[in-house]
Amino acid sequence: MPRAVQPLRLDEIAARLGPGREVSARGDFVVRGVGPLETALPDELAFVRSPRYFAAARASRAGALILPRVGAEPGDTGELASRPSITSPSPDRDFARALSWLAPRYAVEPGVSTQAVVATDAQVDATASIGPGCVVGAGSKIGAGSVLHANVCVYPDVEIGDDCELHAGVVVREGSRIGARVRLQPSVVIGGEGFGLAYGDDGAPQAIPQLGCVVIEDDVEIGANSAVDRASLGETRIGRGSKIDDLVMVAHNVQIGAFSVIAAQSGLAGSARIGERVIVMAQVGVGDHVEIGDESFVGSRAGVAADIPEKSRVWGFPALAGSAWHRQVAALARLPAALKRLRRLERRVDVIDDEDTSGQDEAR
Amino acid sequence: MPRAVQPLRLDEIAARLGPGREVSARGDFVVRGVGPLETALPDELAFVRSPRYFAAARASRAGALILPRVGAEPGDTGELASRPSITSPSPDRDFARALSWLAPRYAVEPGVSTQAVVATDAQVDATASIGPGCVVGAGSKIGAGSVLHANVCVYPDVEIGDDCELHAGVVVREGSRIGARVRLQPSVVIGGEGFGLAYGDDGAPQAIPQLGCVVIEDDVEIGANSAVDRASLGETRIGRGSKIDDLVMVAHNVQIGAFSVIAAQSGLAGSARIGERVIVMAQVGVGDHVEIGDESFVGSRAGVAADIPEKSRVWGFPALAGSAWHRQVAALARLPAALKRLRRLERRVDVIDDEDTSGQDEAR
Amino acid sequence: MPRAVQPLRLDEIAARLGPGREVSARGDFVVRGVGPLETALPDELAFVRSPRYFAAARASRAGALILPRVGAEPGDTGELASRPSITSPSPDRDFARALSWLAPRYAVEPGVSTQAVVATDAQVDATASIGPGCVVGAGSKIGAGSVLHANVCVYPDVEIGDDCELHAGVVVREGSRIGARVRLQPSVVIGGEGFGLAYGDDGAPQAIPQLGCVVIEDDVEIGANSAVDRASLGETRIGRGSKIDDLVMVAHNVQIGAFSVIAAQSGLAGSARIGERVIVMAQVGVGDHVEIGDESFVGSRAGVAADIPEKSRVWGFPALAGSAWHRQVAALARLPAALKRLRRLERRVDVIDDEDTSGQDEAR
Repeated sequence: MPRAVQPLRLDEIAARLGPGREVSARGDFVVRGVGPLETALPDELAFVRSPRYFAAARASRAGALILPRVGAEPGDTGELASRPSITSPSPDRDFARALSWLAPRYAVEPGVSTQAVVATDAQVDATASIGPGCVVGAGSKIGAGSVLHANVCVYPDVEIGDDCELHAGVVVREGSRIGARVRLQPSVVIGGEGFGLAYGDDGAPQAIPQLGCVVIEDDVEIGANSAVDRASLGETRIGRGSKIDDLVMVAHNVQIGAFSVIAAQSGLAGSARIGERVIVMAQVGVGDHVEIGDESFVGSRAGVAADIPEKSRVWGFPALAGSAWHRQVAALARLPAALKRLRRLERRVDVIDDEDTSGQDEAR
Repeated sequence: MPRAVQPLRLDEIAARLGPGREVSARGDFVVRGVGPLETALPDELAFVRSPRYFAAARASRAGALILPRVGAEPGDTGELASRPSITSPSPDRDFARALSWLAPRYAVEPGVSTQAVVATDAQVDATASIGPGCVVGAGSKIGAGSVLHANVCVYPDVEIGDDCELHAGVVVREGSRIGARVRLQPSVVIGGEGFGLAYGDDGAPQAIPQLGCVVIEDDVEIGANSAVDRASLGETRIGRGSKIDDLVMVAHNVQIGAFSVIAAQSGLAGSARIGERVIVMAQVGVGDHVEIGDESFVGSRAGVAADIPEKSRVWGFPALAGSAWHRQVAALARLPAALKRLRRLERRVDVIDDEDTSGQDEAR
Repeated sequence: MPRAVQPLRLDEIAARLGPGREVSARGDFVVRGVGPLETALPDELAFVRSPRYFAAARASRAGALILPRVGAEPGDTGELASRPSITSPSPDRDFARALSWLAPRYAVEPGVSTQAVVATDAQVDATASIGPGCVVGAGSKIGAGSVLHANVCVYPDVEIGDDCELHAGVVVREGSRIGARVRLQPSVVIGGEGFGLAYGDDGAPQAIPQLGCVVIEDDVEIGANSAVDRASLGETRIGRGSKIDDLVMVAHNVQIGAFSVIAAQSGLAGSARIGERVIVMAQVGVGDHVEIGDESFVGSRAGVAADIPEKSRVWGFPALAGSAWHRQVAALARLPAALKRLRRLERRVDVIDDEDTSGQDEAR
């Protein structure tokens, strides 16, 4: 475990989690670390997602547990509840919250590194931290408590809100606007010029100047080596609280609504519109100008080439409703045998036809 | 709109676009910005791709328009032509050209940043701009007017031509040769060592030293976080005027002809050969040593595992000619129902056979 | 050829390759360069993979050759063996080894650049080389002979072993442990926080703190712009001698065994387990918690959603055993025609049924 953990009593954790959590008799147990059930140590906290994991929990050396509430009675979790434990309506979520108290982020000193280059008219809040090798361009603003790790490059005329974290190697191009509590993993590129091409008389592709910008709303997170292109005109926008994984491509003028999730290596082509609370699984492609309705789910590796209404669940390429896709996959598995059956049937019908014909002949 | 716009009179723009453009009476209108039809302001220029967008144009607040030439008479664009406007044979292309005059690139000061590290025997033209955090290795050359934004790393023995733009975080490995007017978006990697593996007696993969280089011809553009690997021996080459999108993988020894286009997240495996004026859409895979003929088109998400002749249009995986692929997709959609029809038909033939047999029995 | 070659006599190369290599009479030939058969010069060495390339070898201007051993007698390679040549049981592997002697890596000066920022309590071996713009965090260790090219960022509490090479722009996040002889291409990101999400009561996705780390064992290589995420808890681990290509995504808690190979643009979802000596071709997706047995082979663009046993060979999505997948692809190609045959057959059976019925009618 790379980071030191801030020791906390189990009853203190339960209290912070709020009402509706039961603490076992051993509320004075001091949590000194966290771990998965398989490897957690006797002074560490682990969590049990559901009763399916009770056997693993019994075998675990974990000193304390967050347990799911099961059965009619709160705390009805068998003998496990006699261990130092908290019974919770949502163990995974409560564990995540506990982690944020037990394992706070690295403390970073505020201030501008002597090895950073900040334009004279840039506005960097006194509580922000600008690491070595960072460059902050003319007219850019960095909000309170925001951290730029090493070698981050912020071009001119960029606004970055409060309490953001930009990891090493992140590049934010000119004119981008980033909200509060946004976290960008290493080498994320915001505002690159994407694919706007016009073809000359000679058929040669010419890049159209991309004059728009990127707007990233509050509480967005973006994974390592992902790229969000600036708009041709207007803006590319990622809505509040949305989470984007590694190596994702968000093209010019894409709009992503609030609280949506885009998993790794997916690509959203130019002007695609993703609604709110949409889940796009990994390695998906969404075509240009395609609209995906709110609360839809797009399965891994799907290719969405046409609009889909809200609350759709689609798979495959071209993407189909889930049931249709599953039928198709199942049918496809039966296809080689079906072709043989078809051939056999044709021969049987040939024979019947021959017999009919010969019967008719005889009848003459 | 992040960048200041250089104000220009409408008739000045028309004159620069060249013969064949009609300007409305209001040629003295001064354009002070640009925007899409939906949001352009009364002092801004927008463009109308085709008559399909006339309704949107009528509803637009845009102060000036570039209109398509329609009908028999030049300027036959209805009441829209009474607005400040230019009638053009290709509004999108003319708008793109107008943008380059209205919204020039950020002016960057020539000279080497005091925070850059340039080898004593590197040759940096006096008009080039080397940003803070850049490193230019021994024996490398940077041409006139070229701009290296912050934290660009140029290894030794690299040649970069005139008027190039290398954005923040770009890495160009040793021995690469880059032509004129090449633009690399942030964090592009040129000349990394790719996948050349030999297997030892113990079956362990061993990396073969990659001694070749990368050659990028004039007017090429490459998108954010893309990677172009050096050749094992010889060179990986990207032809003049070709455009490559974000997160694209170009493996060792790939050859791309002139004026080709490779969209986002596509991958070209080792020694693949892409012809001239080829269009490869997004998330495509091209197998190693596969050859794609000139002027071919490869649809999104296709996987090309075998050579395709010039002017091919392919889709799917394994890639098929467009019509065949569309037939296959349509047939696949009908497959689940077809399997039921097959089953039903088998039963009907069983019944016929039984009747025939029983008929024969009765006849005995 | 970008790098100077260290001249070597042919018999010296053969001697270093070890027993079982035959040198032609011209063992005193001095190799001054290397190249592919097509372009190698008269003072350069090339290799001939198999007899299939004998014609190309005869046409080559290469001064010296590494030839395959064919036929009953060693050296039975026709007239080619009369050229300066080495006969070898494995020409490709021997050529790769010869390359490493002929074309040694760039010599890099040991020591810490004055433009680097190394934490006072970091431990950097005196023989290591830390380039300009590098940052080494508190408590981190860099082993003997390791090279950090420009602008590499090593966060706190990282361990990097001996003789590693981290190319420009690489980022290694806190707590990562990297073995010996590991090579990371430019802009690789190790230890980013991946996709661990819990959903709040309002359905908003919340990032779960990722407290685990990344462990990279000895002799691993990772390609440009790839990302290896830190574990949620515990560790993400890449086994000894494994090779990972460009733009690959390795999610939190993935385990990759020794000597496995993951080709470009593939993605391994959270907690996937890849065995030893597995080959994953390009643009593959492996689902979360999926286990791939030792020595398995996953074809390009496959999607593996369920466990596969050792020595499997799978293709397609959902992934199938190779023979099944090939049958399916072949059957699919015949599907459009088969649907027509089915329709025709239905009509024929309709006619037969009608005749039967009319026959029965007549019989009444």
